[in-house]
Amino acid sequence: MSKMILAFAGGVGGAKLALGLARVLAPEQLTLVVNTGDDFEHLGLHISPDLDTVMYTLAGLANPETGWGQADETWNFLEAVGKLGGETWFRLGDRDLATHVERTRRLRVGESLSQITRDFCQRLDVSAEIIPMSDDPVRTIVHTDEGALPFQEYFVHRRCEPRVRDFEFLGVTSARPHPLLLERLAVAEALIYCPSNPYVSLAPILALPGLRTLIDSRRRAGLPVVAVSPIVGGQALKGPAAKMMRELGLESTAVALAEHYTGTIDGLIIDRADADSASRIESLGLKTLVTDTIMSTEADKIRLAGKSVAFALSFVV
Amino acid sequence: MSKMILAFAGGVGGAKLALGLARVLAPEQLTLVVNTGDDFEHLGLHISPDLDTVMYTLAGLANPETGWGQADETWNFLEAVGKLGGETWFRLGDRDLATHVERTRRLRVGESLSQITRDFCQRLDVSAEIIPMSDDPVRTIVHTDEGALPFQEYFVHRRCEPRVRDFEFLGVTSARPHPLLLERLAVAEALIYCPSNPYVSLAPILALPGLRTLIDSRRRAGLPVVAVSPIVGGQALKGPAAKMMRELGLESTAVALAEHYTGTIDGLIIDRADADSASRIESLGLKTLVTDTIMSTEADKIRLAGKSVAFALSFVV
Repeated sequence: MSKMILAFAGGVGGAKLALGLARVLAPEQLTLVVNTGDDFEHLGLHISPDLDTVMYTLAGLANPETGWGQADETWNFLEAVGKLGGETWFRLGDRDLATHVERTRRLRVGESLSQITRDFCQRLDVSAEIIPMSDDPVRTIVHTDEGALPFQEYFVHRRCEPRVRDFEFLGVTSARPHPLLLERLAVAEALIYCPSNPYVSLAPILALPGLRTLIDSRRRAGLPVVAVSPIVGGQALKGPAAKMMRELGLESTAVALAEHYTGTIDGLIIDRADADSASRIESLGLKTLVTDTIMSTEADKIRLAGKSVAFALSFVV
Repeated sequence: MSKMILAFAGGVGGAKLALGLARVLAPEQLTLVVNTGDDFEHLGLHISPDLDTVMYTLAGLANPETGWGQADETWNFLEAVGKLGGETWFRLGDRDLATHVERTRRLRVGESLSQITRDFCQRLDVSAEIIPMSDDPVRTIVHTDEGALPFQEYFVHRRCEPRVRDFEFLGVTSARPHPLLLERLAVAEALIYCPSNPYVSLAPILALPGLRTLIDSRRRAGLPVVAVSPIVGGQALKGPAAKMMRELGLESTAVALAEHYTGTIDGLIIDRADADSASRIESLGLKTLVTDTIMSTEADKIRLAGKSVAFALSFVV
């Protein structure tokens, strides 16, 4: 039987590697577990930004300029909402809106987020398995110097301007990891952390009750866990990861990221720009793979995905 | 003090005369009471088709081709809903959708339909007063040879094909006429029934508890009530009124319409095409005004509105 890879992802960066993984692995070889900590209610609609970014990317619908939302999008809904005095800070395109309206309708009649996601993926010809980390609500709160902000309020409305102090995942202690996540983890032959924000994309997943313990126990039994660094040359390619690290009193470097993951992963893939950090990272007890991690083209994504899988499986004895 | 006119309206035909009335009367001289019997929930959204048609028409946003929806509309939302397996038979344009999403959100947080309508009108620079007939839900059911159908199911999904047997206004016995409707009725100097469907646009309003009694008592005290016929030359200009009349065993004529209203109105405005029915209608005890009732241009609407007001006020002794 062929190797089964489990990958954890957040939004734009995670979706890029997810697309690469979906191109190099057969559908039955890949399960993508997506952060739902940045889900929120807006205009009365349930919005799952990370799930949508991963789904749109794999469906070939994603906007290549922004990474989020759909390509060839129009904005007439949002313009009309503004005229009616409604909130327009969260950019909901006309096509994108269909996902939120139809998902909200189905959630209200009792379907689960994962059922709806599976059905949407099927209709959009996405064959890789995408599962929300949990069907129970988890809401990321960013504690800042201006107080506690719901994630999208911090991320989109305030453009990550307030200084970060801490993170909180509301509801996570009573959220159950999705049963399929547990099933796949039990049989996976490698676990890959996509190049997603460690604090607000991957941490909510890893905060699910029992999940770290399960991963640790699988690691001790030989499951390799590797991460792809979202930090390149001291900067996050997308999003506030580097800014957050600095505000938390850390260096925004691949080394600091390695320290963050030390003891929980086996290998870290870093960019060539950070090649001179490799030995310091190795001294933390992590293997490194130095390669090009900037995924501009689809070929970049496929190449990095292939390298990630090979790197992860190289730990299997 | 200037004359205050109260007008009852349904959808497209009613909205046309409503626009004319709003052009010939000052904002404080006009209150438009709009049918909500064809409101429904669709894709999890509260939709008020008649209210929207009247509001869009007065705001200059209406689609001049269809009469419903907005001009320069795009359909990307609906196309995307279809791809996700959602229902697409009710045509929700991208701009139009903003009204439904924002209204649904506000209803869910406890605002009333009339508050939301008033606020939307203010933001869209509609200065005439538009009030839903009630803030309580009333739902028109069309009993047909294929069973009972919710109004939009009959009207849009089934394109009025099933044969009509009877109508029912679910919830109407416990619905309260909007307080402003009662206030305006108490001081109005004329009541005009716009050229709307008598069975599914005006009947739900008139079925509100106590309203007919109040109107009758005001009529006895001298309030003139006039209707503009939606039947022209045996046909409804828009919608299923004529077809319904035939299926109910009536002739689809201005005379049959006059018979429908006999005893409840003072005058009926009919089209020149029906001029030879005037004497038969007069013999029923109704005054008639024969004029051009087809409202293609804005000038047509203004002219017919002016004639309607003058005709109504001519009854004031």
